[in-house]
Amino acid sequence: MFTSRPIGFVSSPYKDASQVPKGLGARHDADGVITILPEFELGLTDIEGFSHLVVLWEFDRAQGFELMGMPPSDNRAHGVFATRSPRRPNPIGLTIVELLRRDGGKLHVRGVDMLEGTPVLDIKPLLSSIPAEKLRRGWLAEAEARRTQGPVSP
Amino acid sequence: MFTSRPIGFVSSPYKDASQVPKGLGARHDADGVITILPEFELGLTDIEGFSHLVVLWEFDRAQGFELMGMPPSDNRAHGVFATRSPRRPNPIGLTIVELLRRDGGKLHVRGVDMLEGTPVLDIKPLLSSIPAEKLRRGWLAEAEARRTQGPVSP
Repeated sequence: MFTSRPIGFVSSPYKDASQVPKGLGARHDADGVITILPEFELGLTDIEGFSHLVVLWEFDRAQGFELMGMPPSDNRAHGVFATRSPRRPNPIGLTIVELLRRDGGKLHVRGVDMLEGTPVLDIKPLLSSIPAEKLRRGWLAEAEARRTQGPVSP
Repeated sequence: MFTSRPIGFVSSPYKDASQVPKGLGARHDADGVITILPEFELGLTDIEGFSHLVVLWEFDRAQGFELMGMPPSDNRAHGVFATRSPRRPNPIGLTIVELLRRDGGKLHVRGVDMLEGTPVLDIKPLLSSIPAEKLRRGWLAEAEARRTQGPVSP
C-alpha cells in the first residue's frame, strides 16, 4: 500500500464543516482555488482544455471511520460506502469541480465543498458522465421523496 | 497523511495491463466482482439502491510517477493530472461501474478496467453527472478529431 502525500491545497470559503452546504437540495457552487505545489506543476500541462475535473482529497480533519452512519440528508443510517461520510476506512474525498481558469499552479474552480487548507491527493479529467435517466440514486431519492410527502427532521 | 488499506479486491478478466482496452474508442463493459473484506461488509448497507458506483482503487503494479506522459489515446505527451496514467504521485485509480447485483460482500459490477487482484480503497455512490453538452474533453477530443482526419500512430 502507499502513504498519501499532498500535491497541493484547497483555498475554500469554508473554514469548518458546519459551513459546508449539506443534505437534500444542497448546492455546491462556491468558488475556490486549488494551488498545486511547484514540484507537481508540470503535471497540469493541458488541463485547461477540460471543463470539469475530479478532485481527490483527504478528509484530514476526520477521526477514524464508522461503517454505519446518519447522513445529513436522511434520518436513517446507511452504510459508509452508500454515503459520502468523511469517516471512511481510507479518508479520501471526491469532488467534481468546474475549471474556470488556470494561473500557473493555481486552478480557479467552482463547486468546492472542501474545507480551507484541505490537502489534495490527485486531479483527473472528467471524461464521461452517466445520462441522468440511467442513474438510480437509492436511499437518497427515497429520502427526497419522503421529504416532499411530509416533514423530515433536519 | 494516511497509509492506504484495502477494503476489498477486484476479480477482473484482465490479468495484465496489456489486456485492458485503452485509447480512443476503448469500451469498458467487462463484468467483474468486487469482494469486500468481511470486516467492512456492514458498510455496504443500502448500496444496492444505486445504479452506478465510484470505485477508488490502488495502481498497485505502477512504479513511481511521471509528470508528463504519452497516453495510449494520443501521440503527444500531456500532464499526468490531465490523463488517467497509472504513474501518479498518489497511485489512486477511479472507475465508475454499474452495479448489477449484490451478494453479501460481493458486488457484481459491469465496466471494470482494473487488473485481477487490484486492491480497492473506497466505494462511493455516484450521485450526479454532468450533462454531456456541458462537458469539454480537452486534448482527448482533439486527438479524436485528428484521428478522424487521418492516420494517427497507434
